[in-house]
Amino acid sequence: MKINKQCIIRLSRYKNALYRLKNLGFVKVFSDNLADAVGSTSAQVRKDFSLFGISGNRRGGYQMDTLLEKLNNILGKDKLQKTIVAGAGNIGSALIGYRGFEKEGIDIVAGFDIDSALINEKAETPIFSLSKLKDFVKHSKIEIGIIAVPDSAAQEVLDLMVEGGIKGVLNFAPISLRAPEHIVINNVNLGIELENLIYFVNAVERTGSRE
Amino acid sequence: MKINKQCIIRLSRYKNALYRLKNLGFVKVFSDNLADAVGSTSAQVRKDFSLFGISGNRRGGYQMDTLLEKLNNILGKDKLQKTIVAGAGNIGSALIGYRGFEKEGIDIVAGFDIDSALINEKAETPIFSLSKLKDFVKHSKIEIGIIAVPDSAAQEVLDLMVEGGIKGVLNFAPISLRAPEHIVINNVNLGIELENLIYFVNAVERTGSRE
Repeated sequence: MKINKQCIIRLSRYKNALYRLKNLGFVKVFSDNLADAVGSTSAQVRKDFSLFGISGNRRGGYQMDTLLEKLNNILGKDKLQKTIVAGAGNIGSALIGYRGFEKEGIDIVAGFDIDSALINEKAETPIFSLSKLKDFVKHSKIEIGIIAVPDSAAQEVLDLMVEGGIKGVLNFAPISLRAPEHIVINNVNLGIELENLIYFVNAVERTGSRE
Repeated sequence: MKINKQCIIRLSRYKNALYRLKNLGFVKVFSDNLADAVGSTSAQVRKDFSLFGISGNRRGGYQMDTLLEKLNNILGKDKLQKTIVAGAGNIGSALIGYRGFEKEGIDIVAGFDIDSALINEKAETPIFSLSKLKDFVKHSKIEIGIIAVPDSAAQEVLDLMVEGGIKGVLNFAPISLRAPEHIVINNVNLGIELENLIYFVNAVERTGSRE
């Protein structure tokens, strides 16, 4: 089975679109509806679903509730995923305070920082010293970590996470991190995203099209 | 010329790697060095550069300073890019307070919100009422906007931005936005990024590989 990152991103989008359609009272949904909602094609939707053994029927489409259950199951949303954040500066504290993750089944249980002024073990989501990260991860069996520290500290923090048992990392530090092969690292580089946008905005201005 | 988003993302990474190598004292750099630094291949590096008419020479490699200047020029980093943020909640205020953008040539000049408790026109980066967004964008000739409002408000905010003259949008709201064809929209969906990570971490656990 050949599943790539883009395919799983589309499954997440279908799932999010299904919740919106459900709020509108939909009971059944067709591949065309999902394609419209996420800007894809109905053939792509059917192909993605068939990779996971999900089939609709031509006349009846897909039953919303069954489809949602299957997608949530594939995406691991049947259980709450405990996550920690290393770095409690601007980005880290925003992530810790962001309530949007809860409805996604993602529970940020603690933050960590080296700056003693940011440590607050009594907060609703406690912020501990970075020196406690490895043991916390090990004892609480955390599998997912978010890195929101300056790039000079990011590799060291990743190593601590991996030693503690973390398997997957969302990295906001603008640097390539090295990890053992079984560790999954997704990078979110906001500077590069903005730079990219600026390039294509300028390209539209130069040529009148997106090239 | 066929330039896609991934190609420009690689140019940004080469450029960032060049700054790091420059700090290490490098004067010349070879395509192999850049490939190693960003996890690409030397053939890919040379192909990307040749798309923009950048050529090195086999024995001497690329001169760092000339290469940096060309990349900065391509990426529009020869001028400071003024940017606004709509939404001054957790994510918006983190972006407004994030100092990492300055060295990227991105200057966040103002934030906007509907919540009067968040408005602060006297702050270093002022936060204005959302009702002022369109005129501000028009008068200050802002081309880049960041959307960090709840998904229910995102389309309305995008429309205001486009009416004011914004050409490119970085969207953090977890929803697909509609805009005229000449508007460039890049989406950063943190929930989907985390969901993706969780899927692949679980996949490694199920199969011992990344599928």
